[in-house]
Amino acid sequence: MKISKLGEFGLIDKLTSILQIKDSSVVVGFGDDCSCVNIHGELILFTSDIQLEGKHFIKEKIEPEDLGWKLVSINVSDIASCGGIPEWGFISVGFSPDTELEYVEKIYTGMKDACDFYEMDVIGGNTSASDFIFLDLFLTGKTGKFIGRNGAKEKDLVVLSGYTGLSRAGLELLLMDRKKYEDFEKRLIKAHTRPLARIDLSDKIMRYANSCIDISDGLLGDLRHIGKNSKLKILIEKDNLPVHPDLEKFCRKYNKDPLDYVLYGGEDYELVFTVSEENVKQFENCFVIGKVERGEGVFLKYKDLIEKLEEKGFEHI
Amino acid sequence: MKISKLGEFGLIDKLTSILQIKDSSVVVGFGDDCSCVNIHGELILFTSDIQLEGKHFIKEKIEPEDLGWKLVSINVSDIASCGGIPEWGFISVGFSPDTELEYVEKIYTGMKDACDFYEMDVIGGNTSASDFIFLDLFLTGKTGKFIGRNGAKEKDLVVLSGYTGLSRAGLELLLMDRKKYEDFEKRLIKAHTRPLARIDLSDKIMRYANSCIDISDGLLGDLRHIGKNSKLKILIEKDNLPVHPDLEKFCRKYNKDPLDYVLYGGEDYELVFTVSEENVKQFENCFVIGKVERGEGVFLKYKDLIEKLEEKGFEHI
Repeated sequence: MKISKLGEFGLIDKLTSILQIKDSSVVVGFGDDCSCVNIHGELILFTSDIQLEGKHFIKEKIEPEDLGWKLVSINVSDIASCGGIPEWGFISVGFSPDTELEYVEKIYTGMKDACDFYEMDVIGGNTSASDFIFLDLFLTGKTGKFIGRNGAKEKDLVVLSGYTGLSRAGLELLLMDRKKYEDFEKRLIKAHTRPLARIDLSDKIMRYANSCIDISDGLLGDLRHIGKNSKLKILIEKDNLPVHPDLEKFCRKYNKDPLDYVLYGGEDYELVFTVSEENVKQFENCFVIGKVERGEGVFLKYKDLIEKLEEKGFEHI
Repeated sequence: MKISKLGEFGLIDKLTSILQIKDSSVVVGFGDDCSCVNIHGELILFTSDIQLEGKHFIKEKIEPEDLGWKLVSINVSDIASCGGIPEWGFISVGFSPDTELEYVEKIYTGMKDACDFYEMDVIGGNTSASDFIFLDLFLTGKTGKFIGRNGAKEKDLVVLSGYTGLSRAGLELLLMDRKKYEDFEKRLIKAHTRPLARIDLSDKIMRYANSCIDISDGLLGDLRHIGKNSKLKILIEKDNLPVHPDLEKFCRKYNKDPLDYVLYGGEDYELVFTVSEENVKQFENCFVIGKVERGEGVFLKYKDLIEKLEEKGFEHI
């Protein structure tokens, strides 16, 4: 059987069942945004994410500084979603021998800017020759309490840290290959090329959230993980889904449905989490978009209509 | 300027100077087999090494179980060379969608076998779609004392943990594409496809060695790192270099010079280290091949002749 038949998550299930973990100091293994180990009472998070030329980025479509920034941010986002702050990165890179030094230095400058911004260090690495560029970052973080996908509780509110769908609109604009972009279009492109991990929320996520995930595969796809892993149903109020004014402009101009972007757009790197009614006041400037109920699946409520949302979040295989 | 002009180590120097490390709990950053951080008094090692299709392996030339085994072993070897034992792995993989599930499962089975053998766990991972296979492993370890490349002392003896050159001979045999191999040839091929990290020596390396490196780029190339980083000269006695009987047979059969394999063959994953005369007795079954002196460079002594050895260890860019 080809692995494409299994899909990304089916494949991961198969493979992780082979790698049975024996060490009892491993608090969380496969299946969440981070793994987590206990070192003398300190919870250490592990994650990794890669930028692969031709798959995750097109060399001509992203500035090297942005690429370095994005690589760090998408990893920090995984740490933040578990309620942690980033600590040490380890970078595995491949470049073809005819790559310009200046180009590589700019990627590293972007990485360094992101390290300074997120207050972390890249402390080591490995270099390979490769026919295409890859940048694989491994990142550790620490937290006082691991917040996973499986902790949602009945009656929790579903909270979104910011706007979604902008990154996908930005990617579509980039792929239009236009010579000139309007200002709001430039902002959408920036949302795609220079995402910001919501590390500012880490501490509150750790203290008050029951479950959390970062939105890399699209709001719906990632909410589905929370619902499935927590064995509960997620009900979203359509009218509560925030649409950014720039996304509204984009959708008017190109005749698109904003809901499609808000629900299914990937690479937003906002956080979506569940929290008790009592604690929701801790999250100012966030959007309460729904609630957690007994049952399963993700549903969208609009006036008196409730619709079950279909699988559509993108997978990487 | 193209990065090929700089070479692997020139490039690494350029890039690591951009990523200045601020965190004072980082004991060792770039430039050794592992990085090392201090978590509440515990020294944690970080390393990573990749197997890239077409660069580090040819799919038709290595069994998937061996590939998984090798991936783990080459990372454990880096941990062992710093005097550590492996603890937690994090695996980043890419496969094309038409890869057979069975093939991938066999790679993971090989990884699992190696994890059991080295008493460690792979605790998480990341999966990407990719046009070629890559297997990037990040590995942590722990040690009571970091042993690096820069700790050699004048008058230290240079000690080799085992035979070198077998892996390169095995690779050359594989590339001959023969239908049948003699038994000794099969053993050489196995040295290439299923290397064994010298984790059995970790504890002694930590206690007694002053400097250590694992031999991935060839004995000479790696000794050069010890000499350069310790700012000392390495003098090797030609007659003390061990030549494995299988390598001797290979060289006789194919009219090759064993010294070429012993000194320059890569991917041996033996350890070469320096140790005081007093402590050398701790390392039974190892070969004392030379000594450390004031000066610089790596030299080969044969009877009354002393020859400076040229750069020839292979670089990855």
